[in-house]
Amino acid sequence: MVLLRFFARPSRNCLRTYAVASPSTIFLSTFTRHFHSTPPFFQDTATEMETVNTTERLSQLRGFMKDHKLDIYIVPSEDSHQSEYIAPCDARREYISGFSGSAGTAVVTLEKASLATDGRYFNQAEKQLDTNWELLKQGLQDVPTWQEWTAEQSEGGKTVGVDPSVITGSDARKLLEKIKKKGGAELKPVKENLVDLVWGKAKPSRPMEPVKIQPFEYSGKKFEDKFEELRKELEKRKSLGFVVSMLDEIAWLYNLRGNDIPYNPVFFSYAVITPTAATLYVDDSKLSPEVKSHLGDAVTIRPYDSVFGDIEALSTELTQTKGVETTPKKFLVSTRASWALNQSLGGADKVDEVRSPIGDAKAVKNEVELEGMRACHVRDGAALIEYFAWLEDQLITKSAKLDEVDGADKLEAIRSKHDRFVGLSFDTISSTGPNAAVIHYKPMKGNCSVIDPKEVYLCDSGAQYQDGTTDTTRTLHFGEPTEIERTAYTLVLKGNIALERVRFPKGTTGFALDTMARQFLWAEGLDYRHGTGHGVGSFLVLNVHEGPIGIGTRLQFSEVPLSIGNVISDEPGYYEDGKFGIRIENMIMVKEVETKFKFGDKPYLGFEHVTLVPHCRKLIDTSLLTAEEKAFLNEYHTEVFEKTKEFFKGDSLTLDWLKRETQPY
Amino acid sequence: MVLLRFFARPSRNCLRTYAVASPSTIFLSTFTRHFHSTPPFFQDTATEMETVNTTERLSQLRGFMKDHKLDIYIVPSEDSHQSEYIAPCDARREYISGFSGSAGTAVVTLEKASLATDGRYFNQAEKQLDTNWELLKQGLQDVPTWQEWTAEQSEGGKTVGVDPSVITGSDARKLLEKIKKKGGAELKPVKENLVDLVWGKAKPSRPMEPVKIQPFEYSGKKFEDKFEELRKELEKRKSLGFVVSMLDEIAWLYNLRGNDIPYNPVFFSYAVITPTAATLYVDDSKLSPEVKSHLGDAVTIRPYDSVFGDIEALSTELTQTKGVETTPKKFLVSTRASWALNQSLGGADKVDEVRSPIGDAKAVKNEVELEGMRACHVRDGAALIEYFAWLEDQLITKSAKLDEVDGADKLEAIRSKHDRFVGLSFDTISSTGPNAAVIHYKPMKGNCSVIDPKEVYLCDSGAQYQDGTTDTTRTLHFGEPTEIERTAYTLVLKGNIALERVRFPKGTTGFALDTMARQFLWAEGLDYRHGTGHGVGSFLVLNVHEGPIGIGTRLQFSEVPLSIGNVISDEPGYYEDGKFGIRIENMIMVKEVETKFKFGDKPYLGFEHVTLVPHCRKLIDTSLLTAEEKAFLNEYHTEVFEKTKEFFKGDSLTLDWLKRETQPY
Repeated sequence: MVLLRFFARPSRNCLRTYAVASPSTIFLSTFTRHFHSTPPFFQDTATEMETVNTTERLSQLRGFMKDHKLDIYIVPSEDSHQSEYIAPCDARREYISGFSGSAGTAVVTLEKASLATDGRYFNQAEKQLDTNWELLKQGLQDVPTWQEWTAEQSEGGKTVGVDPSVITGSDARKLLEKIKKKGGAELKPVKENLVDLVWGKAKPSRPMEPVKIQPFEYSGKKFEDKFEELRKELEKRKSLGFVVSMLDEIAWLYNLRGNDIPYNPVFFSYAVITPTAATLYVDDSKLSPEVKSHLGDAVTIRPYDSVFGDIEALSTELTQTKGVETTPKKFLVSTRASWALNQSLGGADKVDEVRSPIGDAKAVKNEVELEGMRACHVRDGAALIEYFAWLEDQLITKSAKLDEVDGADKLEAIRSKHDRFVGLSFDTISSTGPNAAVIHYKPMKGNCSVIDPKEVYLCDSGAQYQDGTTDTTRTLHFGEPTEIERTAYTLVLKGNIALERVRFPKGTTGFALDTMARQFLWAEGLDYRHGTGHGVGSFLVLNVHEGPIGIGTRLQFSEVPLSIGNVISDEPGYYEDGKFGIRIENMIMVKEVETKFKFGDKPYLGFEHVTLVPHCRKLIDTSLLTAEEKAFLNEYHTEVFEKTKEFFKGDSLTLDWLKRETQPY
Repeated sequence: MVLLRFFARPSRNCLRTYAVASPSTIFLSTFTRHFHSTPPFFQDTATEMETVNTTERLSQLRGFMKDHKLDIYIVPSEDSHQSEYIAPCDARREYISGFSGSAGTAVVTLEKASLATDGRYFNQAEKQLDTNWELLKQGLQDVPTWQEWTAEQSEGGKTVGVDPSVITGSDARKLLEKIKKKGGAELKPVKENLVDLVWGKAKPSRPMEPVKIQPFEYSGKKFEDKFEELRKELEKRKSLGFVVSMLDEIAWLYNLRGNDIPYNPVFFSYAVITPTAATLYVDDSKLSPEVKSHLGDAVTIRPYDSVFGDIEALSTELTQTKGVETTPKKFLVSTRASWALNQSLGGADKVDEVRSPIGDAKAVKNEVELEGMRACHVRDGAALIEYFAWLEDQLITKSAKLDEVDGADKLEAIRSKHDRFVGLSFDTISSTGPNAAVIHYKPMKGNCSVIDPKEVYLCDSGAQYQDGTTDTTRTLHFGEPTEIERTAYTLVLKGNIALERVRFPKGTTGFALDTMARQFLWAEGLDYRHGTGHGVGSFLVLNVHEGPIGIGTRLQFSEVPLSIGNVISDEPGYYEDGKFGIRIENMIMVKEVETKFKFGDKPYLGFEHVTLVPHCRKLIDTSLLTAEEKAFLNEYHTEVFEKTKEFFKGDSLTLDWLKRETQPY
């Protein structure tokens, strides 16, 4: 799955990406598949891409704004945990504006309303917004950012309000700065969410899915040991404690998993770890006796909603008690923690906003997690191989008419047969021809294309297994590819291989390696407008939020070196708008490599691939490959064949396809 | 010349690097050569590497500190222009401490004195510092930085003083922050330099070398046109004016050159450019009637020392006159401008510290400058070829005993015969065997090694010509290289070639390209601890200060993309302490390249080499080269031969050497 400049959060185009808040007793149910038949949960508000009448909602909101003496009210897209995917109950920006894209901010004044979103969503926003709304096309010249627009509206001492639990401390500070510059009076944190007041009883309830244990055989480390390491970190940083707000970090830290947010096996919670105590804020009804016994005496359980009051009291207590010491002591929070958390702790004097030490630790997988990654990728590879063989047979031998969603559904059905399968890790990108050029394309039943065997077919998909998370892209052709398609595919493949094969001294960052994947495309004047690699969790979140590492030209990727145990994607691509798209994605793991020399006595690192799916023979122009690259491909294809063939006993269709696709050059 | 983490400023080890302040009427004299026979100008203070008795100087300094009510006084290494090389009159830190290394800061309290320097100079500092001084070995664990040491000494409300003209505004702010944290009272700018008071009449006078015109045939752009572009930039940034403090920026802007600082053809000056006026602060005695006529009515000349008073008055006048406007208007200064300049302008409210727009413009060479670069590299290449042929003949055929300085002198003598030669661009690194592993090695007559024909010989040198600046490194072997020497040389060469051959879309930075040069070394567990490329001026400064661009892992190189017209070095290396060192350096220029495709309608860029000196056949292991690399080398060597052969008519020794070294593989 590709890392763009923007977060990929589900859009209304793809209803399947929203979790439905229905309690489920079967944790290992495929928590995405059953959404296919689920009707849109926003039936009361919007049908697909239709304009939403927001007059009444805005009128009510403005009433509540007046009650709070606000002139302007900000409605961000985020939930209280800055999650990449959100639950329906947190889709406040969509409810108030009618715009259902994944990215955007609504700003409502007493007279006006504006909705800011980026280039991916200009068309959709124009369709969905009614005349109450002004669309701020972010990124276009002479269009103000929503912060600038807010600042302009605040001139003359206006008061701006926002729910401090859905904006980060640093975003709030930056906004306040803009407002002040324009002569605005104040950015006021309003604890009561005013959109929720308007939404009232129609608002979906917060998911209450049961929490499950991630057993030691998959986690590889007891949570008590994770606590110990975190506490050493707290001691090193002279910190009073760490208030954890990111849901995947809490799930990882406690070796627990949930089902509250689609594709991400997390549960709504906060956690506070101090040198002597650990508190988990989660609603008791989600916890089975087994989970409680797993946590034992080491963890205090408190209701989800009580976190703010609790940490306020804790901060007052600890900073008063320790106030006599000369070293200033503070709490750690993630830079992505909400303004509300910051405030509850007592603000800047009591809070150090840092890159989360849990995020850093989580990105370095232990041997058990790495083994789980290897294992689940064998099963996942077998599923993709079976699917591709089936698809070719359907399209070519049987001349079947299949649309992109049919393909995605079949792939999911195949995956779900495999051991330890839990669900998809994101919406399957099943795309034919020009749709493959839409990097975050999501097919929708009734509104998607029939797969054309004479065009390129791009499939980017992944699953959550109890022992790991997968994310694989393959681009195929079932007919005769054009010359440019073959050239582009081969250049992308060369980059994919070059990145996997590079060796580098410890201390090197993903920023420094990005060019390895692009060099062959660049040489021909080609490129792709997305990152090259993102982290992936162990049965957890993938994409932008997994770990501080990544491969690409974002400056943040120059901050943290790649470390042994990191798991990261290797996914160069090439896209021609309106024509075709190519992407090849493997997951690769950082390991120490043997080198002839060892300058500076530093370990030298390299990558090990875990993805096991053949590359498309029809799309490879072997005249562009070096002898070394051919040898590498042959070795890879032999490995794919040997490790997956056992799944196809008695399935000669798949086995024949696999044999053909993995024969040596 | 290599870009290390530290600036390379001349050390006392190498007396030749200091300019002698003697007026010269012949501008085109070789302003470095005659230093060889010049006695140390600090004869009164220190002989080579001997301990200096500073008791009396410190006692006097403390007297002056008390007069100014200072408890602590900081003596940085820098001059008022943050120049990379300094004139003798600015070597205050050396005078007060006795330590003559290029990098270091002295901090003197009423009781103690400390000298902070980095790993390159620990031995030298230990020898040169007397018992009055504590050595702060920067970079070692548990050793405070000089700022931390100062802060500790300032506890209890002490006052710290510094000459604000030799510290940047941002360095002063950071120091003040540290002091305040430790309970220090104040960082006091003391305009009178207290070391100068101690130094008294023994202090060398400020150089007063004549300023010369850089004619249009070499500059390629009239200064009036440069003014116009700068003024457009001022308008865009809504700035009142730009106060220019970097000497190379002033020389470039006015198409003038000087002779005040060794190796850098600059002159002591400041400049102020406003939308309507241009003032050059330089002592009148340096300006000939020709120069005054060149500047004409467009430029007001004012004495060097009057800049602070003038800009204070200017700032008061302009900000009062324009005070009625709503847009806050400020002056621009470089982030490397002194605290004194900042203060004179009125501090943070009146000053925007920015990456210098002149630095940005200067880094993009025009066609005339690029042509000059090409032309001077042909002559410079011929000089190096003649030198290497001579050296081999001397060492092998004639079995001559030559030391490293003999070699450097001969090379300079050969260079000086060539058209438009002005002087060296830095101290020649002429190093044999283990000395080649010392990245900034500088041989000193009487204390350097005899060149061993059985060892590697590394020569990093360059010259200033009126039409351009050169900087070339070649590593040679006159006998039988070892296997590791050949392997390392070939891997370095492969990196050098890969970087030159890379193509990249407009917008790519030097940070992203660094790995191209290291990848082959990394694959074998090898690396080098310096940057890969630095900018170079046109008959101006090279190394860290030339332009905002560079190739390497410094974060600053991720800020500014490479642009057509940039000239930059390509110099990977490999060093084995105590054994040998390898570096291969070409100057390369950024140009637009033709590519088969043009994704995103962006120009694709690549490099053109200008350095023309053969690579060492004996050190190349051709089994490590691809067919493409061999073809590339053959083409390069043919070009070197064709472009330089005309210089060797009647010089069969050189011509034979050149033919042998450039024959095809």
